[in-house]
Formats: sequence, structure tokens, C-alpha cells
Amino acid sequence: MNKVYITRRETFNAAHKLWQPNWSEEKNNEVFGRCANKNWHGHNFVLYVTVSGIPDPESGFVMNLKDLSAIIKKEVTEKLDHKNLNLDVPFLDGIMTSTENVIIAIWQILEPIIAAYGAALAKLKLVETENNFVEYFGGKEPF
Amino acid sequence: MNKVYITRRETFNAAHKLWQPNWSEEKNNEVFGRCANKNWHGHNFVLYVTVSGIPDPESGFVMNLKDLSAIIKKEVTEKLDHKNLNLDVPFLDGIMTSTENVIIAIWQILEPIIAAYGAALAKLKLVETENNFVEYFGGKEPF
Amino acid sequence: MNKVYITRRETFNAAHKLWQPNWSEEKNNEVFGRCANKNWHGHNFVLYVTVSGIPDPESGFVMNLKDLSAIIKKEVTEKLDHKNLNLDVPFLDGIMTSTENVIIAIWQILEPIIAAYGAALAKLKLVETENNFVEYFGGKEPF
Amino acid sequence: MNKVYITRRETFNAAHKLWQPNWSEEKNNEVFGRCANKNWHGHNFVLYVTVSGIPDPESGFVMNLKDLSAIIKKEVTEKLDHKNLNLDVPFLDGIMTSTENVIIAIWQILEPIIAAYGAALAKLKLVETENNFVEYFGGKEPF
Amino acid sequence: MNKVYITRRETFNAAHKLWQPNWSEEKNNEVFGRCANKNWHGHNFVLYVTVSGIPDPESGFVMNLKDLSAIIKKEVTEKLDHKNLNLDVPFLDGIMTSTENVIIAIWQILEPIIAAYGAALAKLKLVETENNFVEYFGGKEPF
Amino acid sequence: MNKVYITRRETFNAAHKLWQPNWSEEKNNEVFGRCANKNWHGHNFVLYVTVSGIPDPESGFVMNLKDLSAIIKKEVTEKLDHKNLNLDVPFLDGIMTSTENVIIAIWQILEPIIAAYGAALAKLKLVETENNFVEYFGGKEPF
Repeated sequence: MNKVYITRRETFNAAHKLWQPNWSEEKNNEVFGRCANKNWHGHNFVLYVTVSGIPDPESGFVMNLKDLSAIIKKEVTEKLDHKNLNLDVPFLDGIMTSTENVIIAIWQILEPIIAAYGAALAKLKLVETENNFVEYFGGKEPF
Repeated sequence: MNKVYITRRETFNAAHKLWQPNWSEEKNNEVFGRCANKNWHGHNFVLYVTVSGIPDPESGFVMNLKDLSAIIKKEVTEKLDHKNLNLDVPFLDGIMTSTENVIIAIWQILEPIIAAYGAALAKLKLVETENNFVEYFGGKEPF
Repeated sequence: MNKVYITRRETFNAAHKLWQPNWSEEKNNEVFGRCANKNWHGHNFVLYVTVSGIPDPESGFVMNLKDLSAIIKKEVTEKLDHKNLNLDVPFLDGIMTSTENVIIAIWQILEPIIAAYGAALAKLKLVETENNFVEYFGGKEPF
Repeated sequence: MNKVYITRRETFNAAHKLWQPNWSEEKNNEVFGRCANKNWHGHNFVLYVTVSGIPDPESGFVMNLKDLSAIIKKEVTEKLDHKNLNLDVPFLDGIMTSTENVIIAIWQILEPIIAAYGAALAKLKLVETENNFVEYFGGKEPF
Repeated sequence: MNKVYITRRETFNAAHKLWQPNWSEEKNNEVFGRCANKNWHGHNFVLYVTVSGIPDPESGFVMNLKDLSAIIKKEVTEKLDHKNLNLDVPFLDGIMTSTENVIIAIWQILEPIIAAYGAALAKLKLVETENNFVEYFGGKEPF
Repeated sequence: MNKVYITRRETFNAAHKLWQPNWSEEKNNEVFGRCANKNWHGHNFVLYVTVSGIPDPESGFVMNLKDLSAIIKKEVTEKLDHKNLNLDVPFLDGIMTSTENVIIAIWQILEPIIAAYGAALAKLKLVETENNFVEYFGGKEPF
């Protein structure tokens, strides 16, 4: 059972802010700091999508990376690129746009599509800045 | 005359959009594409500030990088970080926030301050994405 | 039981193509796209080799990285560097040179050698481009 | 149970040497090579601290990254930055400063502090050079 | 005269070899070493194209980066990507494919096209590996 | 006159401190801050050596990068790697080891050797951290 993990990197540039409407302005500023700026800020986000499977005996592929790239672009990054995560993205509607919440929302979109393709989404990694990133395994706790 | 060039890297994360109010919405979308999204987008900008001079015989420094970093942060990056370049930054007021225009505006702020310190601003480099960056030498044309 | 994971990075530059001789030219082009170019293409491959173990009380080492680097170079990267993966590498003979298949072949070479040294090969990562990489845990499924 | 893993990157620049006082000079040089230079050498170390948890429903955070950064700086990197790991760091006193041993010592400091905060330290990664890094999961063996 | 320099990064993955047909096999191996392997090797090449000009008062652009990217792809990188530089590229026909010669050939293609667009090609940088790159200013000697 | 600039990257890891013996301890700490730590600190230095010339009609080379790499290693980086810049390096004896002074000292070593080879040293770049680097053109002021 030679399970191999393949990863495709895609990028998107977006605006957002962290703002909890149930909280006072003071609490928003205290918790979120500069990220609460009402006029938004933004990032060059980098998304890594990892799919696991056994390489096909004929193609040598776990999954065709052209297909994986096309799925990520169509379903996720083209909906996020040059967008405002709080205002422009139906699948993030009503969600506090922390990277933690964004990565869970991306998983919920990609997991069934990749499963329907016959492969398994194993991991997502979403990089917000060179100093901050999040990882998600669909709720699993590998470590 | 052993002129050496020293560079300090600083970063800021900001939102902006490209929108020319003298143009129709169609022309804005045609020229600026996704960058014209009315709800903004954003980037992790990286700014490189290069100062030239002859190393001091005692300190071995062209300019103390602690001082250079403090100047860049106070005068530039703290005014841009987690801001909206179109709405929140007095020194960009009324300016189309292309990276070309932003780098010229940063030069105009930093050049006299670094000259007053006794050194010479030689070059700025502003990186918008891993695929796009601009450089400025105060109008000089080294190549 | 303080198991620590140490990783050594090595590189090799090689040519290859993806071509399944059991398929028609049309199917090869459809599945492999530009990677099926008969005259080859190539990459700067980056290989990360991760070994796990308990640090030796005297040396503080899981495994001497000089030794690990020497093993990887002798057994793997010097056999791949500036080579054609399809034509020049005995341990890839008859194998479709997808990164999935190449990483499994590298595991089969390194695992017994590192075990004989008294350590344990835990993970391989093979980077083909900045956008594509594969990982392999010897068939284990950590996530 | 949507466990998400968040990572903060911090850096420190330090001197050290590898030298086992129980060994002869010959054995030190044989095992540690250039790393045994009596007059020290140094590195730009990069530390990645990964914390796992379920995002808070209101903030969307596993842990506030401002707090995580402040803890790492106060407890670890400010004690290591521009220091000699063998001479200047109480929590490394008497420890062979291999990256394996340093990462375990950092875990022992950070784990209880992050637990007291209500989150869980899941992983550390310590990069010594572009070619060498170590990872530690508190003794767990995820793969 | 606020001349600004803008740069676009594009990539291509290609095979090549260094082989001088006027030389003996011995001399080819002596001069080119592993790069003379008859069965080819390859690289992930990165091309940086720098254009200089004065930002347009209305758009703020020296040149629209969408257009610059489209020109580079159409005229250069799509002709090189997943190709054999020695066999598949008309504009490199009969040329020793050292990076020095390749960068001059790319300049000769791009310079007139960018001039016709109304901008000026100022610099090319071609990265072959993380350790080797070449730069070209159209024959100018800025330093 | 098709002058091309080729660059080779080499690395070295070293300890140093900034300390001016003509100054009081207070002034040393004030000017150099953490860099004045008596017990040293260290960095992963990266050196880029740029040579200019006209590609040879037969080899296509400005200079054989194998030779350039061998010269840099023999004359510079092997004398600096895993050393203390203040104590172990004859060509830095008595020199305040700021990156400005170190890059000038490296130029003085490499320039005549590369000239004797028939090429021209055009530029050095010495990176101390991801945030700080220096460049030197032999005293020339290209910008």
C-alpha cells in the first residue's frame, strides 16, 4: 500500500479585516489590533493542497496535477483572488475571516470534489504572511 | 572612495485598488482588470531601502541599520501596514496607488530624512507579489 | 522517548519525460500534456530526507548530518544529477518517471542503508517545481 | 472537532560550537568536523512554533498570534538572539548544543506556558541552515 | 524625469546540454563536465524582465504588467517551457545553450516588441539554479 | 560588445561581534547593541560574486562557473566557513567585522585573481540576514 502525498501550490491576493460584530469597537481593537482596521488590509495568500493516494500503475500519478490545479482554481482561488474575503465570497458569507476559518471553509469545498475524482484530500496549508500560516487535516489530529 | 551600498528590508500588508476616477467603469475594468475590484484587494508588500556611503572608519558602518530600520518604520511602513493605501495614507492622498506611484512617494519621504542623517538614499525596491516588483533610483537611469 | 526528526536537503538537476509506451501518442499527450515532449524537459529537483531517532547522549545527534549527506549523495543524487531519469539511472529502469514513482524508488534505496546505520528513514519530500511536490512515508498514512 | 494547526515563525542569530568535553580533541574533530571550531561559528536560526486547537467561535482564533509571538520572543528567542548558545543561555546550561538538544529544551519551556494559556503545543521546527533542520513533536511519533 | 523600473517574473522548465561540436569528446567533458551529458539534463529556469519608463499620469503604469506578461509568455517562455533548448527552439538554433547565450537571444526577441509598445527593455535576469544566474542590459555596462 | 554578467552564490556560517576597542563599553553597546555581545553571535552568510565579460564564441561562457566556484571557495568561503571572523581569518585581522568592511576585504582578494583569469569582478553582494545585505562595486557608484 504505497500511499504517496502530492501537493499543488496556488496563490491569491485578497483584502479582509477581522471584526466581530457582537463586540464593542474597543474589544475588536484589543483582540484584533491592526487587523481590525475598518478600511481593510490585505495579503498575498498561498494555498497548498495535499492529496493522498496510490500511484496509478500506468500513469504513475496519484492524481493528475493539471486536474488538481484546475479544480483549486475554479472552486477556490478564482473566487478569492483580488476579492474582499468579507464582502465578495459567497462561501465565506457570515464567517469571521481568520485564516483558521478560511482554511476550514476551503476544505469543505474541495474535499467532496476531490473524493468524487477518486482521490483523497489529506491536508491544506494556508500561508498568510511569511511569519504566519495554518494547516488543516479535515479535523484529524496527526500530531 | 570605497562607496558601499547597504540595504534594509521591511514589510507591510495593505489593501488597495486601482481605479481612475476620470475613466468609465468599462475602461477601468479593461485596463486594471481584477485590480479594479471596488471592494479592494491586498498584498504583503516588501520594501528594500538601499543607502550608499563610505563606511565610517570607527564603526565600519555606512549607516547604523538600527537607525535606518527605525526611520523606515516610523516614516513609511507603520503608516502603510494594515492600511488601505487609497483611504488611510495622507502621503498617498489623491494618487493612483500603482506600485510605480507608491515607490516615488516613498522616495520623496525618505530621501531628505536620510540626507539629513548624513547618508544618501540610492535605491528603493517594492515587491508587490512574487511575480511583480518595481525599482526606483530617484529618477536616475543606471541602466 | 524523545524522538526527534532531522532533515537534510540535497539537490539534483535532471531531464525526463512522461511517456507511457502502452498508450497511443494521443493519449500520452492528453494525459501528460507538455510533459510528454519527446525531446525531454527538465527540472531542478530538491530532495528532503528526514530521519528519526533519539539524540545520542554524548554527541547530541540523531544521526551525523555529514554521514546522512554523504549517503544521499553517493546513493541517490550523484546518480540523478545532470542525468536523464528515463535513460541514465539503473534504479529507475522501466519506471514511469513521475515524481510519485521516483520518490518510492529513492525510499527503497535509502531505507535499508539508513537502517543499517542504526537510524530510521521517516519521510522523503521531492520538489519538482515551486508549485508541485510529493511526500512519502514508506507507505504509512500519518494523515 | 475541527482541530486546526497554527504556526508562528520567529528568528534568532546566535553563535555556538559542538564540543563534547568527555572526548579527546581528535574525536571531537572527527565527529563534529568544522562545527568543533574552538572560536565558535554561528547561524541565522529560524524557529516555527505550531499550536493546535479548535478555533474560538467568536474570534475565529486557535490562539491569538500576537500572544503566541510575544510568548516565543519573551521565553525563547530574546534569550537566544545574538547570544552564544553554549555560554549565555541558562536553559541550555551543560547541554551539547546540537539542534536536536536545543529543540527539546525549547519544547520544555514553551509547552507548559502554552498549555496554561489554554492551547496545545503540537510541533516545533528549528532551521539551522538551508540544508539542515530538525522537528520535534514532544516525543510523539506521527510518522 | 521619474524613470521607474518594473519587473515581471516568468518561469519555464527545459532540458538542454552543453556540447561544442567543434571539440573532441574529451574537451567537451573537460570544459562542460556533467553539463555535457549526451542524454541531456534540465532546469527550472526563472526569467525576470525589467522595463523602464515614466509612469503614465492616468494609469500610474510604466507598462501594463498584464501586457508585459502576455508578451513574455507568447514570445519567449511558451516557446521554451517543457522544451529541449538545443532541439526544439527555432530562435536558439545553432547556438550553444549557455545561459549567457540564451539571455542574449531572449533580449533580441523582446527588445523590439517592447519598444514597439512604447516602453524600453532595460534588463533581463535568467536564473538557472539557486547558485547560478546571468544578467544582461543589452550590452550596456552599468557597473 | 555583448557584455553579460554572471553570478555565483556561495555560503558560509560564521561567528563575529562588533566591538570598537577605542570606545568605552557604554559606547560599544549604544552603537552596536546586541551585536556587541562579548561572547559572539553568528550568521548564515550568503555571498554572490558577479563577473562580467563577453561570452566566449566556442564555450558560450563569460567564465566557467566551476572555476569561479572553486576560486571563491578556495580564496574566501573556506577561510570564513565555521570560523570566527574576528579571530580566525588572517585577511580580516584588525578589521571591524561589519558587513561593509568584510565585503571590501573580499573584493581585494577576488579582484586580482579573477582579473588574472581574464575576466572582471563586477559586483559583490553579502547577505547577513534576510533583512540586511550589502553590495559593493569596487568603489564604483552605478547609482
